[in-house]
Amino acid sequence: MTTISKSKCGKCGNAFNDDKLYFQKHSGVKFCEECFIKDTKRKIRKNLGKDILKNHITIAVGISGGKDSLVMAYVLNEFFKQIPNSKIIGIMVNEGIEGFRNDGIEKGIKFCEKFGIEYHIATFSEYIGANLDEIVNIAKEKNMTMNPCSFCGVIRRKILNRVAIEKKCDYLAIGHNLDDISQAVMMNYIEGDIKKLAILGKSSNSDKFVKRIKPLSKIPENEVKLFADILKMDYHKAPCPYSCLSYRSEVSDIIDMLEEKHAGTMYSIVAGYERLLEHLEVPGDITLCEKCGEPSALKICKVCSFLKDLGLEKNSKF
Amino acid sequence: MTTISKSKCGKCGNAFNDDKLYFQKHSGVKFCEECFIKDTKRKIRKNLGKDILKNHITIAVGISGGKDSLVMAYVLNEFFKQIPNSKIIGIMVNEGIEGFRNDGIEKGIKFCEKFGIEYHIATFSEYIGANLDEIVNIAKEKNMTMNPCSFCGVIRRKILNRVAIEKKCDYLAIGHNLDDISQAVMMNYIEGDIKKLAILGKSSNSDKFVKRIKPLSKIPENEVKLFADILKMDYHKAPCPYSCLSYRSEVSDIIDMLEEKHAGTMYSIVAGYERLLEHLEVPGDITLCEKCGEPSALKICKVCSFLKDLGLEKNSKF
Repeated sequence: MTTISKSKCGKCGNAFNDDKLYFQKHSGVKFCEECFIKDTKRKIRKNLGKDILKNHITIAVGISGGKDSLVMAYVLNEFFKQIPNSKIIGIMVNEGIEGFRNDGIEKGIKFCEKFGIEYHIATFSEYIGANLDEIVNIAKEKNMTMNPCSFCGVIRRKILNRVAIEKKCDYLAIGHNLDDISQAVMMNYIEGDIKKLAILGKSSNSDKFVKRIKPLSKIPENEVKLFADILKMDYHKAPCPYSCLSYRSEVSDIIDMLEEKHAGTMYSIVAGYERLLEHLEVPGDITLCEKCGEPSALKICKVCSFLKDLGLEKNSKF
Repeated sequence: MTTISKSKCGKCGNAFNDDKLYFQKHSGVKFCEECFIKDTKRKIRKNLGKDILKNHITIAVGISGGKDSLVMAYVLNEFFKQIPNSKIIGIMVNEGIEGFRNDGIEKGIKFCEKFGIEYHIATFSEYIGANLDEIVNIAKEKNMTMNPCSFCGVIRRKILNRVAIEKKCDYLAIGHNLDDISQAVMMNYIEGDIKKLAILGKSSNSDKFVKRIKPLSKIPENEVKLFADILKMDYHKAPCPYSCLSYRSEVSDIIDMLEEKHAGTMYSIVAGYERLLEHLEVPGDITLCEKCGEPSALKICKVCSFLKDLGLEKNSKF
């Protein structure tokens, strides 16, 4: 006969089998599943604040179909369905990556339909006349050294922003979790890029940009996954075939190693960064891109200069 | 017959056996010994700047006898012996660490006498009535959890500052190299300690503190060592027996790993930090310690509160 050891949940005080409790190392608290879900929602609510959780607000939610975006959409939907005249709209961007993106989009659609969330699907082809697979091939033919991720990232962001404006959204919610943010902060610390540090944490004041919010910025990745798994959410698990995160994954390994030895490291990196941000200003030298008219650090923004190099200018909606 | 391969020095253009050339990975330049020494001195001169390298300046130089302090003293002495009415004074602090510190002090004295540098030796016993070995024993008897390094660091700094004031010095030069500084910056980034980040890089404006300078802050440790070895300097090599740098050495390993893969990482960390510093202010809430009267972040400064806990208050000169 095996004895299953039991412990108490640090929140509700009830006893549970140990395999049903989550030990949050940095706080030293054990959570039962119900209390964990409740506590995570509380943290996300606190992170959003009262300026966002109110009447007459429409939030565009970037949905990839992965765990982060679905957990974010799930929690935001719970909050906003109780607030009159406020709502969330799911926005999916289909980059056109064979054998990958359709699965994510499918999960996203199923999720939105299950929870009655309005959604919109935008495609790279529709906005720039070519999908990512085609772009990667064009770049190869032209002998351009191009990292697919860096292209995909900026164009996806531009499309999300554009759709959020068209849908008259007040905010654009992005599913970056604590791990993502601590990695981005650390990469900029290491590269000594103060301008990027400032831009990373502050919204532009331009009316051409919908204000971005990151509701999961205080939730570590393992907890986002746990949340999704406890609620049996059906999310897209495959990694992107273009995934080229070498430098980021190096930094991620370093942070994971530190977190393992010194629980709370990711929180302290991000908390320190937020205090630092109070002293930084978003660079004032932002001008308007000569091609698309959107704010840009350079004369021609990254997306427009990519499109020019690829010979895709004429089909672009930007 | 073996062939020794030769290459050109990237500075003077002369050919040397490869084992006589130093390859500086981040710049891609090979240096012969002579050009390396010259270039390192140039960087230190540039780092000091014209506000420091001028007439009527006295610099207190903290000398431990290790490679960093001796290289710093050597170069500063070369610069200042050519400037009328300016000089450097070596200051050694004997903490009283059995089997360790005397060797360092001996190397420091030999060095100063060889180069005709005025020097002064201060001891923990003289200033606080006990040496570090005794303090560690007292702490043990009192069941105090005390890290010898953190005590030694603050008291050494206080003594160096006190002697520099007594000797009417304009600056106090500390031998921290690029590795030391990038580690300290990274530790504060990770801990999210913005106050310490600001204090680390800026001098207090108080007339109770001699302005600290770090002439080697742009020279990586391996280059300081190479400089000392090329000039056949006789420096103290043993590590301190109390050396308890666990967390720092963890961070040091991380930075070394990054530097190995991405040459120039230490420079980019420190350069970014310096740009950041322009946005930070040294906290204005510095008050005077109720015991010693020196500026302190708390009512009683760290040294005075250590001394109180150890029962050493009455013998202290502070």
